[in-house]
Amino acid sequence: MNLAEEMSRLARQAKAASRSLAKLSTAEKNACLLAMANALEEHGPAIQRANELDMAAGTQAGLTGAMLDRLKLDEKRIASIAKGLRDVAALPDPVGRILDERLRPNGLKLQKMTTPIGVVVIIYESRPNVTADAAGLCFKSGNATILRGGKEALNSNRAIAEVLVSAGRGQLAAFSEHAIQVVPTIDREAIQELLSLTQYVDVCMPRGGESLIRAVAECSKVPVIKHFKGVCHVFVDADADLKMAEEIVMNAKVQRPAVCNAMETLLIDRALAPAFLPVIANRLSEKNVELRVDQEARELLNGQDSISNTQTRIKLASEQDWFNEYNDYILNVRLVEGVQQAIDHINYYGSAHSDSIVTRNEARAKQFLAEVDSAAVYWNASTRFTDGGEFGMGAEIGISTDKVGARGPMGLDELTTYKWIGIGNGQVRS
Amino acid sequence: MNLAEEMSRLARQAKAASRSLAKLSTAEKNACLLAMANALEEHGPAIQRANELDMAAGTQAGLTGAMLDRLKLDEKRIASIAKGLRDVAALPDPVGRILDERLRPNGLKLQKMTTPIGVVVIIYESRPNVTADAAGLCFKSGNATILRGGKEALNSNRAIAEVLVSAGRGQLAAFSEHAIQVVPTIDREAIQELLSLTQYVDVCMPRGGESLIRAVAECSKVPVIKHFKGVCHVFVDADADLKMAEEIVMNAKVQRPAVCNAMETLLIDRALAPAFLPVIANRLSEKNVELRVDQEARELLNGQDSISNTQTRIKLASEQDWFNEYNDYILNVRLVEGVQQAIDHINYYGSAHSDSIVTRNEARAKQFLAEVDSAAVYWNASTRFTDGGEFGMGAEIGISTDKVGARGPMGLDELTTYKWIGIGNGQVRS
Repeated sequence: MNLAEEMSRLARQAKAASRSLAKLSTAEKNACLLAMANALEEHGPAIQRANELDMAAGTQAGLTGAMLDRLKLDEKRIASIAKGLRDVAALPDPVGRILDERLRPNGLKLQKMTTPIGVVVIIYESRPNVTADAAGLCFKSGNATILRGGKEALNSNRAIAEVLVSAGRGQLAAFSEHAIQVVPTIDREAIQELLSLTQYVDVCMPRGGESLIRAVAECSKVPVIKHFKGVCHVFVDADADLKMAEEIVMNAKVQRPAVCNAMETLLIDRALAPAFLPVIANRLSEKNVELRVDQEARELLNGQDSISNTQTRIKLASEQDWFNEYNDYILNVRLVEGVQQAIDHINYYGSAHSDSIVTRNEARAKQFLAEVDSAAVYWNASTRFTDGGEFGMGAEIGISTDKVGARGPMGLDELTTYKWIGIGNGQVRS
Repeated sequence: MNLAEEMSRLARQAKAASRSLAKLSTAEKNACLLAMANALEEHGPAIQRANELDMAAGTQAGLTGAMLDRLKLDEKRIASIAKGLRDVAALPDPVGRILDERLRPNGLKLQKMTTPIGVVVIIYESRPNVTADAAGLCFKSGNATILRGGKEALNSNRAIAEVLVSAGRGQLAAFSEHAIQVVPTIDREAIQELLSLTQYVDVCMPRGGESLIRAVAECSKVPVIKHFKGVCHVFVDADADLKMAEEIVMNAKVQRPAVCNAMETLLIDRALAPAFLPVIANRLSEKNVELRVDQEARELLNGQDSISNTQTRIKLASEQDWFNEYNDYILNVRLVEGVQQAIDHINYYGSAHSDSIVTRNEARAKQFLAEVDSAAVYWNASTRFTDGGEFGMGAEIGISTDKVGARGPMGLDELTTYKWIGIGNGQVRS
């Protein structure tokens, strides 16, 4: 069987499985999730053996220590994956919710009801925990999953999926063996084949670095829900509470700089800069944050004795820097002339992910909230809150900066679509 | 300027216009829509002169009478377009609705609020009224539009768009001249260029025949919301009210056969076929509907004297016929063994558009409503109701059979996306 045939078979099987998944009751799905969690722990040693094959190959292939660490599955990590499935079992079923209901003058009752999407392809990088997390969320929302993890994690991913499917089938006769499938090859062409099968695959959600996501978006014929990167901003308005601004800026930058909702660029109203910039620059330098600043900010900082010892950590920002997602202890700083310039900067250089204004001025806050065209916009809060858990979604399959389909953090609800149900008593159209 | 540069300029202008459109108040938008409606009537003669150029070129190019009729704009049609804009002005503003609201334990208040999508490309065939209808709906929902109608209607479309923009600018200084733009060339490559500009264009909605829509979906790098075709079914269950089933079948097939929500295939429970099939075959033959039937239905019909005079209108259906959208006085008929076979037939051969079950049996109705994977599923009602007007949306920009983004009829609400707004008092993440 060639690659195209193999991918077609995989996708066709997933579509058939999605029909039977859509029929499962909430209780059936939850029982399967709990059985999967137990089986992961029970078969932990087998999963670890598969993982050791990946670790050995990875070491030989020269993966970095950080990459090997992401790849590794130990007992604690497996327990944490199992806990994740139990948490998903405890969440409300997202299928069958009535989003809208209307009774037409002719007596036809219309209901807009959530349904599973169908077949979801997840493409991700090395962490094998995504295999179980994504499969669990897709299963709870009634979707069949096709998983394509990093090539260095293939053995681990297959072992996890086998345990999940086997536990599901042990729990429930109606559980399809194709509900959760791992692409059995590391051939990159497999992705392109799979994402051309619009008759079977309903959506693709890539997770990982920008280059992976761009490659997927570029080749896919099926809808892709994604975010390329997180170039997030905090704008400190002229009427900001300075202490609040300090805490939000520090949290958005240094609490966890490697994640997509961390701040990359700080915008400060020019009027406030003399009072705020030296203070925040000092605090940031204590955390070894490199600043890339505009000319005006540099002049202001140069005039300050107190930060002269941190001069080596201050550079002039290049035009490209404003577009950068550093995921590191680096921060762009620009002074702006009021809220409109801040909004324009964000809409031009940003990635439509998460942006925040710090101000006591309600009119300017409302303008910022209305005009910044991002998935999540905050007033007096850190950008770091853009996260399924923080939003109360219970779990997250990813974050979207798209405008068609889900936007912002995606939990179980965002793994559903809807259909319209019309209940009549013989209505015909005149 | 070459084509790529020209399309890039068009799209960039649209994106800039979308920023200013998003700021308009409901009153400002409605005043512009009413001014546009008045201007269309006032400048009717100029629009008709432009239309006459298209009509003359179309006649010379050998367009059929039906195509020329679709192309024609007379005073009555222009009045009807103007009325459409006034109707849109009267509809509620879809922007700024709160879809969800949650207060997190840390005091952060989250609101999921509807916003405009941004830049919407509409690609359509010859009817020039779509130019104003689509522009009006997009404008009311705060989106900038780029319109690409049929090449035979270019003069008409440009004339309409000019009147709309000029009226908008006359009414409101903040109205951007790029809020509504017509692609100024009939070069087909323009579409491909435009739909590669993911940094400016947010969504494309093609309207027209399957080949147009497939071509757009195939080449587009931006999300496309679409339906390829409407292969709609009515399933007459064993427990159907026969008189109701007759009326629904006749309405779904012959009330307007050329539209996408008309029925193409009738499925009848085998148990009911002897009582129902001859009756409905007779009624359909009175309306000159050709039947393409399975072997079993043919044998049943052959045994009936009463319809022997209509034999020439009954053929055996081919495998391909079950996939066909006839948009004509032709109907497939198949006998099935119960509701599950009907559901399986629809999910395999259908187009996920609109399907109906006629039955008094609640359990089977619920199974059908749950398992038929279509945008609209009916119980005891005609498939013909899948329509923005019939759904109470006031107006319709199209119908979607997609699962990412809007599904079913699309009105103003379906021309919006959402953003998350987080309002805090200094919250940071721990």
